[in-house]
Order: sequence, then structure tokens, then C-alpha cells
Amino acid sequence: MKVVLDAMGGDYGPSVNVAGAVEAVNEWNVDVILTGDEELIQKEIDKLQYKGDRIKIVHCTEIIENSDKPSTALRKKKDSSLVVAMQMVKDGEADAIISAGNTGALLAGGLFVIGRIKGISRPALAVPFPTPKGMSLLIDAGANADCKPQHLYEFALMGSLYMEAIQNQQYPKVCLANVGMEEGKGNELVKESYQLLESSDLPFHGNIEARDIPAGEADVIVCDGFTGNIILKLFEGVAHTFSDTLKQAIMSNWKSKLGGLMMKPALKSFKKQFDYTEYGGVPFLGVNGLLIKAHGSSNSKAIKNAIKQAKTSYEADLLQKITERIAEISQQKDSKNKDVSGDEQ
Amino acid sequence: MKVVLDAMGGDYGPSVNVAGAVEAVNEWNVDVILTGDEELIQKEIDKLQYKGDRIKIVHCTEIIENSDKPSTALRKKKDSSLVVAMQMVKDGEADAIISAGNTGALLAGGLFVIGRIKGISRPALAVPFPTPKGMSLLIDAGANADCKPQHLYEFALMGSLYMEAIQNQQYPKVCLANVGMEEGKGNELVKESYQLLESSDLPFHGNIEARDIPAGEADVIVCDGFTGNIILKLFEGVAHTFSDTLKQAIMSNWKSKLGGLMMKPALKSFKKQFDYTEYGGVPFLGVNGLLIKAHGSSNSKAIKNAIKQAKTSYEADLLQKITERIAEISQQKDSKNKDVSGDEQ
Repeated sequence: MKVVLDAMGGDYGPSVNVAGAVEAVNEWNVDVILTGDEELIQKEIDKLQYKGDRIKIVHCTEIIENSDKPSTALRKKKDSSLVVAMQMVKDGEADAIISAGNTGALLAGGLFVIGRIKGISRPALAVPFPTPKGMSLLIDAGANADCKPQHLYEFALMGSLYMEAIQNQQYPKVCLANVGMEEGKGNELVKESYQLLESSDLPFHGNIEARDIPAGEADVIVCDGFTGNIILKLFEGVAHTFSDTLKQAIMSNWKSKLGGLMMKPALKSFKKQFDYTEYGGVPFLGVNGLLIKAHGSSNSKAIKNAIKQAKTSYEADLLQKITERIAEISQQKDSKNKDVSGDEQ
Repeated sequence: MKVVLDAMGGDYGPSVNVAGAVEAVNEWNVDVILTGDEELIQKEIDKLQYKGDRIKIVHCTEIIENSDKPSTALRKKKDSSLVVAMQMVKDGEADAIISAGNTGALLAGGLFVIGRIKGISRPALAVPFPTPKGMSLLIDAGANADCKPQHLYEFALMGSLYMEAIQNQQYPKVCLANVGMEEGKGNELVKESYQLLESSDLPFHGNIEARDIPAGEADVIVCDGFTGNIILKLFEGVAHTFSDTLKQAIMSNWKSKLGGLMMKPALKSFKKQFDYTEYGGVPFLGVNGLLIKAHGSSNSKAIKNAIKQAKTSYEADLLQKITERIAEISQQKDSKNKDVSGDEQ
């Protein structure tokens, strides 16, 4: 497969993107196209002494910065590393795109350059995260701040297909993020969404309280993008404060310092479980192409794992599975509507 | 001061409530009235060999269970430990009420038995929580699932007055929980609320991303009750999963076990920082009385600390300060409106 990688995206620019790409092509059967400043990219490739033919460069003269307004940047910076990469997926020259750059531009580009899957009104960010019970998926993690019940239904559908295709879960447990377990809890959006999900064919298991999310009590956690982004970032923040406080506790006296030293391998494996660089990027589901958002502060390992994720999604036919299932559902709906109108005549 | 404590509330019933009350009256200058089954309560008091006169019992024949529907329970169980306790605050027979029982019934009772402060349309749960920089306050943490900008403004106002009165913070940093730092980010509710807060007299410092909440980057975090409840419970859940995973890492081999043993005091102080029982209960601000919700699974220490919190709020004149400030603001508004209509004549 061919992955196109926005080599200029992310806080560290070409260096980590190129290093991630080199690590990936050395390890797996994958080709990587790097979009961006050819000279800078080639320099990084030379540094790593990569001499193979699995990496190609497509030179671009512009960069979309984090400070750029997404819609304006997309329109004005046609020769940016991001837009050129997007267009390659649109034109079938690449099978997936990865960028650690401006999130807003990436999402807008997904919608307006690549386009939506027919039948999906709102593509969504789907964040896989580790729990003691395995991987769970949070959808939408921030693409759509204001949502309607139909959108949450689409998120649930795409999320469950993702878990089936990528995590091999037969009937992933789909739950609504809510403030209580019982039906009837929550705000207007989740109350209405509950009804819609309950009446659908999805493996819907009701509400989940936020305190049960980290333990892995649901496989797919469905919410609007505002709530999802709060969940995602709070997760990150609590983990960060927790490790800082733990570190301080360890450094507080010689006895605990020595103790900490003895625990080092254990603490390392503990830390690894909460390390996003292990899990690569975040797929933007519902666009008509594989699109993966890598963390802005990705290192080369994170980029490499994002490429792996693109590869897994490609080999699992994720895009096709979502497209087909959506088509099936809208066909069923159409024929139902026809039946109904038939009855009425 | 006199605190009335719903002795039947919470997962452990009279035992922890009575023990918390006994510890509190032994330590501080406070009287506690216990509402509930006199026989059961007296038995617990006897067990603890408390012989003083700072604890009184008011016998009630009914209990509002967690499974009871709040509105129905309030109407039908007039002689429940909760409703009787509420009524005592309403009638001025007690200065504050604490309950670890049915949250919905407690909130509804606050609104319909005790009543709102004039000028406050939506009372809110205000959760104080520890950060490396001191205490922060999350408001609303779950009383109002659907909100309007005016409600968030009221939360911000009450939250800042709480931090001034209770934490002695002169200009507490008030922020809106949001998905990005910049103005214009977020859902419709926070976008509009931003404008309202920006144009107010409050010490408003813009948006805060969820990842910066645990580090204590804001003193008062304002949000709707759905978002706040998600934040509160996710905090709890991540901390829980984190300690579990850490414990497992420590127990994974003899070396890290020994290391863990050496770190025990450090780990204990670490754990203490994330222990809700240290911080007592959650005030329900905006009702016309001091109302404190204790955690359902409170132990006696948590109950004791909730009593301490009631005492602190009482001594800081919290209720009066909120009431006066709200009256001032509505007076300013009225005179402004008069000026405007004067201009128009």
C-alpha cells in the first residue's frame, strides 16, 4: 500500500516525519510518499542513510501553520504539503493520508478535499485508547462540537465497524457517555440519542458513566465532539499530573528514591500503557479515504505507529466496510419507506 | 452552629454518619442534629460511648432510597430523614444540611423545600478539588444537564464568590471548560457564554482545555452540569485505573515489591492528594441555605470533613455573600434599565 505523509506537519516538522517513515518502510511492506520541502526532506533521509526506493518525495512550496485559519488556508495554500497529500488520496494516488499538522485544516480538508462517504453526514475523530480490558474507542473526540442524535448514531455505527474490523471484536459493546447509567439520564441530546440507538441494530448497551470509561467497561464510547474532546484531554491531563505527583513522591527522600530505582522496570511498563506514541494516530472516520491525525507533538515512533495504523485499516478494508454497511442501511430504509407509502395508497 | 445531618443517607447508613458526627463535635465547636431512625442512631452513639450534649436526634419514620424517584419521594415521604432535615434548614432550626443520600432528591429538595436565592435561576454543584497549585472549583458538576449562557454566568459568579470566601482567593481565575484556548472555539453554549462572561465584571480569563484542569491552571472551571459531571467522574475513574495499574506494576516481581515497600510513605502521601474523603462534600450553591452533598460511599472521615466544610462556609458567611452580591447586581441592572428607559423618554 501507499501512504502519503504530510512531512511538514507537527511540532517537530520533517525530522520526526522522515524518521517515522524510514522506520516504517524498513519494517513493513509499505510505501511512503512524503509531501513538503524536498530539500529539507532529502536532508533528513540522507541523515538516516536511507537508500531504498520505498520512499518518494513530492515537493510542495507551502506549509499550513497551526496558527492558520483552516478554511482560508485550504483555499489559499493549494500547494501546501497537506492539501497536496489530500489531493493524492482523492485522486487514488495514495491509499491513506497521515498528518500531525493543523487539526482544523486536516478535518476541513477531509470534508472538502476528500469528501464524505455517502450517507454519513458528520465524519468523526475516533480515538483508540488502552484499558485494562484491551482497547476501547472514543467517538467523536472533537470534530463536531454541536451534534444531533442522528450524528451520534452515525458515530456509533462507524465506531462499531472500526472495532470489528481493526480489533476483531465481534459485537463491540457500544455505550453512550452519560452522567448516569439509567435510561432517561443526561441532557436532551443523549436522551434522544439513547432512543435512536436503542431502536437500531447496533450492539447498544445503554449508558456509561465517565468513571467507568478508563476501566474499559465499554468498547465504543459515543458522544458529541465537545464532550469527547473534554474526555480525551482530561485523560491526558490527569495522567500527566498523576505521573508528576508520583515522580515528586519518589524524589521526596532517599528511601523512596531507592525504592523508585528498584521499581524502574515496573514503572516503565506502567508508563508505557498510558503512552499515546504506542498507539499511533486518530482516524477521521466517515471521509471517503483513510485519514489519520497524528498527535501534534508526535515523535518518530508515534509517526511510525500511525503508518502502521493506516496499514492495518487498509488491510482490514475498513473504508469499504463502512461504505457498504451505510449503503445497506440506506437501502433498507428506502425499501421500508416504499413499503409504508405502498400501504398508504 | 447547628448542622443537621441526614443519618440514613449514603451507602453505609447511620454507622458512618454517626461516627463522623461524633468525631466532628469532639473536635470542633459545632452541634449536630441527626435525622433518622432514633433506635438505630442511638445504638451507634452508644457504641462510640459518646455522652456529650452536642448531638441531638430527630426521629423520622421514612427513608428516601437511592432507587426512589426524587420528585415522588419528596412529595410522598414527608417524614423521611432527608425531608425533615431540609425543613429544619428552611425553618431556621439548623444552619446547614448534609446528606450522603439520593443526589437527585437532595438537589430537588434544595430547590423545592429550601428554595433558591433570589436572582439565581439554577443552583449548581460546586466541587472543590486539589491540584498541585492548591484547590480549584468545578461548577456545575451535575445539577443542570442542559444550560443556557445566563446559567453559566451564574455558576461563574457563585464559584468566584465561593473561592473568595472559602479559599481566600482575591481574584480567582475563572475559566470556561472548552476544547481549545482561543475565543470562538467550542459549542454554541460556550461560544455565547464566553461573550457574556467577557462583558461581565468577573475575573474571567477565557477558555481552559481539559488537559490543563488537573494541573490547576484555573481556580474556577465553569461548565454545564453534563460536562462537569463527565469531568468529575472521569477524574475519579482515571485516578482509580491509574492506582490499580500502578499497584499491579509494584506487585509484578520481588524487586519492585521491595521498592514499593520502601516508597510506602511517599505513595501514601501521593494517594492522599487524590482522596476525596480529605475534602468532604460538595456544596449545592444557589439555594437559600447551606446544603452539602457528601459522596454516597462516604466513610466517617468524609462525613466529618463535610461537617467541617459546612462550618467553614457558615463562618465565612458564604450564603450571605452570594445573596448580597446577587442583589447588588440586579439592582445595578435595574438602575441601568431605568437610565435607558429614561434616555428614551
